[in-house]
Amino acid sequence: MVQNLVQASELDVQKWLNTETEISLELLKGKVVAIFAFQMLCPGCVEHSIPQARLVYEMFSKDDLVVIGLHTVFEHHQAMTETSLKAFLHEYKIVFPVGIDAPSENDGDPIPKTMQKYGMRGTPTLILIDRKGYLRKHKMGLEHDLQLGAELMALIDENKNLDPI
Amino acid sequence: MVQNLVQASELDVQKWLNTETEISLELLKGKVVAIFAFQMLCPGCVEHSIPQARLVYEMFSKDDLVVIGLHTVFEHHQAMTETSLKAFLHEYKIVFPVGIDAPSENDGDPIPKTMQKYGMRGTPTLILIDRKGYLRKHKMGLEHDLQLGAELMALIDENKNLDPI
Amino acid sequence: MVQNLVQASELDVQKWLNTETEISLELLKGKVVAIFAFQMLCPGCVEHSIPQARLVYEMFSKDDLVVIGLHTVFEHHQAMTETSLKAFLHEYKIVFPVGIDAPSENDGDPIPKTMQKYGMRGTPTLILIDRKGYLRKHKMGLEHDLQLGAELMALIDENKNLDPI
Amino acid sequence: MVQNLVQASELDVQKWLNTETEISLELLKGKVVAIFAFQMLCPGCVEHSIPQARLVYEMFSKDDLVVIGLHTVFEHHQAMTETSLKAFLHEYKIVFPVGIDAPSENDGDPIPKTMQKYGMRGTPTLILIDRKGYLRKHKMGLEHDLQLGAELMALIDENKNLDPI
Repeated sequence: MVQNLVQASELDVQKWLNTETEISLELLKGKVVAIFAFQMLCPGCVEHSIPQARLVYEMFSKDDLVVIGLHTVFEHHQAMTETSLKAFLHEYKIVFPVGIDAPSENDGDPIPKTMQKYGMRGTPTLILIDRKGYLRKHKMGLEHDLQLGAELMALIDENKNLDPI
Repeated sequence: MVQNLVQASELDVQKWLNTETEISLELLKGKVVAIFAFQMLCPGCVEHSIPQARLVYEMFSKDDLVVIGLHTVFEHHQAMTETSLKAFLHEYKIVFPVGIDAPSENDGDPIPKTMQKYGMRGTPTLILIDRKGYLRKHKMGLEHDLQLGAELMALIDENKNLDPI
Repeated sequence: MVQNLVQASELDVQKWLNTETEISLELLKGKVVAIFAFQMLCPGCVEHSIPQARLVYEMFSKDDLVVIGLHTVFEHHQAMTETSLKAFLHEYKIVFPVGIDAPSENDGDPIPKTMQKYGMRGTPTLILIDRKGYLRKHKMGLEHDLQLGAELMALIDENKNLDPI
Repeated sequence: MVQNLVQASELDVQKWLNTETEISLELLKGKVVAIFAFQMLCPGCVEHSIPQARLVYEMFSKDDLVVIGLHTVFEHHQAMTETSLKAFLHEYKIVFPVGIDAPSENDGDPIPKTMQKYGMRGTPTLILIDRKGYLRKHKMGLEHDLQLGAELMALIDENKNLDPI
């Protein structure tokens, strides 16, 4: 039924916040993964995407769905440092894991590695990955709650008995 | 897994609007059914439940999900007549089928038949019925879009290959 | 300073609700008058204009400002009767005076008298009248709360010591 | 009528953004001044107070009303630097003057000078000053648009012919 799917590329994260254990897509196989790529100074992220991520995190079972924030800073780098991000997470009561996308190794390239790898064009961007590790959704902009709830549940219902790694 | 389920009672509808074909839960078996019970002069219905129903109707495949409005008038009966309801449906651009709950046969009983049968306590009330005709949700008040999207998709994913009657 | 102002035409009201005393613009001279023309089945009215009117009514001193609802039915007349309107006022907790605009005397003319007289083109329409009885604003559509608050206060501040009639 | 008013204390600003001219309350006498004290990582400020300030700035005449943002950082100081604030102003399209409240001279005191002087207890805080320089409102938390519109206009209407300094 599902054709031409590609495995989601591994995340290139410089540092993880809100988690003590290592996070990698490889290790998360067996669960659905929702990645909310954002910038802390992006109004659409703050107004819509971050509250939505928080709600998704609260609503679904952690056994079925892993919610990840990805701080993909591609502008105003000096304004959105790790220190600023930590205060932001505290003030906006974000408790799910957030990865800081690793800076490009090319001098002067503002686009961080994961953002580059996935071809993201801006923030917010929503990435959904199924239990088998396939990339199932890549959308820039806002997603309606009703739509997202339905899509997440559809992925959760797939391959429920997949052995975790 | 699913235990103690009961078949959803048939609707007692006086008149259907927005549909030319007969509607009965029996005939809808094989599909998921979402019933939005409302009153046209109930602020919570108008503000939240009706727009949500409209969005659900637009978003899901008609092969999987049937959206039904049920006008369960239990107060101000003279203010919410069929004539008024028709104008309301027109002004609020509601195009899915809406049934007028049949008035009680007991003199002076303000509660219409389906409302009575289901034990609804007010409006808005949301009723979800699975493909096999089992009552799966009965909730008075507002439901969040994310939650509803997930629940509908969970029901849609059940028994997908059930033969329609 | 203010030029070319015209006196606001008297309202032609068939029946007043939510008031025991006669209401006429003539008798209200000395106060600012805000008229919210609406239809009970007009979504923009229900969503924006009616809640705004309620808030205006609560916020300003009754000595300075009189809030009036005007039910200007120009379509679906049988659906928006006095009985339906009364239930609507009850359900939406509207306690300020509401006048039912008098039907046209010309057979088949759907536009009620005050609506005709003022040249209103639809609902919601906002009419502001100053302490001297001059028409100061006539706007169809939605007005922002910040703008309306400022405009009302500007009118309230004018001619504060005008002798009431 | 107005009694026991006190002159608003002068602002202690470390640096002004979005303005090329010196700003002081003394120099602004003759106009109404609305000061929106905020922190760029305060959710209530970002969601409500900043958009409200932007709208106030757009809606009223610059001859009558001066809108000022005051960045009163009292927590997460390293996260809300001038660099971060500048990016914030850019992303949130804030074009009115914003002053960075001057840090306390007492070692370890997190409360900046103007915040201290005015006895502000948090963010957002709204300060209104009349044309004569008197402090007329000091409110922590959210103010409704309708209320604010009315209050600003009431102040604007006072002493309109006051000679500017």
